[in-house]
Amino acid sequence: MSDAMAEVTMADLEKLWASALFGEEDVAALRASREVLDDQVEDVLDVWYGFIGSQPQLVATFVDQGSGQPDTRYLGAVRTRFGQWVRDTAAAVFDEAWLAQQLEIGRRHHRIGKNLTDGVNGSAIVPFRYLFPVLFPITHTLKPFLAKGGHPPEQVDAMAAAWLKVLLVQVTLWSAPYVPAEDF
Amino acid sequence: MSDAMAEVTMADLEKLWASALFGEEDVAALRASREVLDDQVEDVLDVWYGFIGSQPQLVATFVDQGSGQPDTRYLGAVRTRFGQWVRDTAAAVFDEAWLAQQLEIGRRHHRIGKNLTDGVNGSAIVPFRYLFPVLFPITHTLKPFLAKGGHPPEQVDAMAAAWLKVLLVQVTLWSAPYVPAEDF
Repeated sequence: MSDAMAEVTMADLEKLWASALFGEEDVAALRASREVLDDQVEDVLDVWYGFIGSQPQLVATFVDQGSGQPDTRYLGAVRTRFGQWVRDTAAAVFDEAWLAQQLEIGRRHHRIGKNLTDGVNGSAIVPFRYLFPVLFPITHTLKPFLAKGGHPPEQVDAMAAAWLKVLLVQVTLWSAPYVPAEDF
Repeated sequence: MSDAMAEVTMADLEKLWASALFGEEDVAALRASREVLDDQVEDVLDVWYGFIGSQPQLVATFVDQGSGQPDTRYLGAVRTRFGQWVRDTAAAVFDEAWLAQQLEIGRRHHRIGKNLTDGVNGSAIVPFRYLFPVLFPITHTLKPFLAKGGHPPEQVDAMAAAWLKVLLVQVTLWSAPYVPAEDF
């Protein structure tokens, strides 16, 4: 565990957006995706949960340390937040509250906060090593849902690109509890 | 600095590939990209260096702590390795030597190894926060180069997807010195 978690200011966040080439056109693309995804969120989550459930090293997060079985209550509680996270990401209001929420999501992945929100007995931590590799399946499987809004292919591509950029920045923020402040 | 750096085995690496949905078809796509990129590597590096040079928080890596100016010798030495890294990634021989090399690249980003290889006086560390956000510009700007080989669009897409997957896994490995072993 890190001795002290990095503080991330709105000025720091601006540099992350710039590093990912994330700009106003990406905010617009995310908001366009919000309408497209709004009534598809449960279907998206079905695909993502299917993927996570298919890989033992990923489903391990949800395995109750007593029974050795996936905790369906935990899976369900996370799913509710996961759906809200899709809508919040697509709403693209990247203010102080959003930044604080990303750091909170990071805590819920790390041993400093995992299991506490839901009062469960899952694995102690989501290992850092899986946080970023899963961004490929997450973004790749989102694209067919983005395409269902009837937008031209270049706009669907723009939405998919905006989702990839925002996730690279978000998961970087989620990583804050994993990395000593001076190295973050 | 982490107390102990995580050890990553070939079995661990297999789980990272699986988490990114990276498979044999991606190895083939990377190798196809090798021929396409072979005589374009310097042009790719021009674009990437142009991007890094345009963002103060990224060029900071190369700023000599004495003069306050970018160190052209350091930039040049890294550029030579960067070109070799493009060819090595496209060669897609993901064996023990490759895995060891990724952990070495991680050390050269982190304060435990940065500046030592080239005997320079740059910033003490590449901050973790920038490692992943730049994967969007890096992969996005690669795609036009991948398209120049005359492959059908779906094969160019497959090459671009394979590059994104392999970079998510590689930069995860480069992060090992940043994350305490028990959290990695």
